[in-house]
Amino acid sequence: MHNRIYNFSAGPAVLPEGVLEEAQKDLLSLKGLGMSVMEISHRCKAADEIFATTDANLRRLLRLGDNYKILWLGGGASQQFSMVPMNLLRGEGRSADYILTGSWGEKAIKEAKKEGTARAIWTGKAENFVRVPKPEELNFDPKAVYVHYTSNETIQGVQFEAEPDAGGIPLVCDASSDILSRPIDASKYGLIYAGAQKNMGPAGLTVVIIREDLLPLCGENLPSMLSYRVHAENNSVYNTPPVFAIYILMLVTRWLIEIIGGLEPMAAINKRKSQLLYDAIDSSGGFYRGHSDPSCRSAMNVTWRLPSEDLEKEFVAEAKKYSMDGLKGHRSVGGIRASIYNAMPEKGVETLRDFMKDFASKKG
Amino acid sequence: MHNRIYNFSAGPAVLPEGVLEEAQKDLLSLKGLGMSVMEISHRCKAADEIFATTDANLRRLLRLGDNYKILWLGGGASQQFSMVPMNLLRGEGRSADYILTGSWGEKAIKEAKKEGTARAIWTGKAENFVRVPKPEELNFDPKAVYVHYTSNETIQGVQFEAEPDAGGIPLVCDASSDILSRPIDASKYGLIYAGAQKNMGPAGLTVVIIREDLLPLCGENLPSMLSYRVHAENNSVYNTPPVFAIYILMLVTRWLIEIIGGLEPMAAINKRKSQLLYDAIDSSGGFYRGHSDPSCRSAMNVTWRLPSEDLEKEFVAEAKKYSMDGLKGHRSVGGIRASIYNAMPEKGVETLRDFMKDFASKKG
Repeated sequence: MHNRIYNFSAGPAVLPEGVLEEAQKDLLSLKGLGMSVMEISHRCKAADEIFATTDANLRRLLRLGDNYKILWLGGGASQQFSMVPMNLLRGEGRSADYILTGSWGEKAIKEAKKEGTARAIWTGKAENFVRVPKPEELNFDPKAVYVHYTSNETIQGVQFEAEPDAGGIPLVCDASSDILSRPIDASKYGLIYAGAQKNMGPAGLTVVIIREDLLPLCGENLPSMLSYRVHAENNSVYNTPPVFAIYILMLVTRWLIEIIGGLEPMAAINKRKSQLLYDAIDSSGGFYRGHSDPSCRSAMNVTWRLPSEDLEKEFVAEAKKYSMDGLKGHRSVGGIRASIYNAMPEKGVETLRDFMKDFASKKG
Repeated sequence: MHNRIYNFSAGPAVLPEGVLEEAQKDLLSLKGLGMSVMEISHRCKAADEIFATTDANLRRLLRLGDNYKILWLGGGASQQFSMVPMNLLRGEGRSADYILTGSWGEKAIKEAKKEGTARAIWTGKAENFVRVPKPEELNFDPKAVYVHYTSNETIQGVQFEAEPDAGGIPLVCDASSDILSRPIDASKYGLIYAGAQKNMGPAGLTVVIIREDLLPLCGENLPSMLSYRVHAENNSVYNTPPVFAIYILMLVTRWLIEIIGGLEPMAAINKRKSQLLYDAIDSSGGFYRGHSDPSCRSAMNVTWRLPSEDLEKEFVAEAKKYSMDGLKGHRSVGGIRASIYNAMPEKGVETLRDFMKDFASKKG
């Protein structure tokens, strides 16, 4: 008995229990190797196998063509806010279009502007970031090197239903909080980046998927560790990558393939889980007020308010008594946020839904 | 029974078995928390305690004054090769002095030159990096912003006995492969950086210790994730740090304090361990030839050659049969390298020493 609780944290976040159990079993000696996966050289055969298996699993799940490279980096998505423009935006006459649907997109363009010309072609700020743009609201610069967007805004709980149609301009996507939560059309992307600590593994690993034809855009004189080209040419072992975190990602992708059956069933489960909470919000007679426009509700981060901040505090504190943690909304927006990534069991969401109904009937 | 082998890898490297056992025990639920340390938010109380304890332990072990900040970063020491000059060297009239005693120092200055004026004031390259400079060989620029050196060159096995005397110019030290292996005079340093994966924990964490008076040198418009100032102002939680790796470092520092008794006894053990191997080299009648000058021999990475490359291959292959792995020298220098960091048990070094004697008597 592990006495595990339901962890609704936005990231680092819940991992599949089977993954943790396997990591635990092998922690002192990986499969007869006599060393912990934390201790093995990143250039040994066992590490090669971990990297290759993880790469293959990601390719399979995301249906990536052979023209994409997968890089294992550090520094989180926040470092990508700078690395993307350092690599792709430095150069005569280059500019990029940014779509801002929440806090992370705003951070991304702020860093991009330090490196080159970045244009916010749409922002939901005036509406308090409750939705994504309609196609007719987007006026792309046809010469843009890339279009950057955030597929799911973790703080606001606003998610794109599908990739925006940028008419062939490469999409650059911060997919930190919904990567591997549903199938994607990989061919639309020039670059996808995601911190591991929501749907993939522990904090400290950032996955970057880059289309090879973008690599020549990366300047020759960048700091080596900040150059996609250097990492791609060295198959992500230019220096020591975060081996243990990649190993956990290997176990997570295996869980997705073997236990869940791929991203279609995962998406269906995620849809079902989030619907339970949105139904509880919609049927509360106004006691719970969802943050996002119903057309853009996130299947990963469900965000809502209660009639008062005092009631919100009470909700969070009371939920803890029922073994539910991490429900406090982000300090910048307040309210409640339930992050229900891939690894959150349906039972956990049902428990929260029941608690919501009960709390509303008592306090409403 | 774990059937653990003796792992002489240069990094990632062996960790204390007690640390791995504790991490294993708590992997699914940290001390009654109901969540794995891989799953907890970096802003929760449990994470705060991990960061604070690790910070306090490092301060105690390294005798750091209150005027130092400890930062938890990603990207490895290689990223620091760029971050150090990006932060400290950009600015009118600034330059830095570099002492090159091996491969890593060479990489460091190469990246520094992309960012500003970096001067190699001494290099051991012509002598094949077998020693550190004598004090009289060092002509510092008294106006240098910092003096960079590599306290232990992992590839060559060349170590400074003590900090070079730079006459008050702040030392910037890449201590990746000997941090926490012996006491240091912290007051001499402006900045110490080290990848965790040798003496501290798993790959994916880089510890940066910076003296606060250097922070104003860091430019205002740096990418946020590459600014020491931003990380220092945000107590290393500007974004999500590698929580799990910091947790392992907490356990390692606790092991150093509680089991080993601090850095003095650790240094004595390390001296004793390395002496076993250097004695085996010196008493082999020339069968084994040490790489480094005896005055600069590393207590962490013992490097030597055999009479032929074939014998070196045989040595490595044969050692594997006796449960010793990771002995192949770095591809750039060849030969044998035994990395015997803090966590390598004396028994492991004795086993290697006995094997060396046996192998020499059979093949010599």
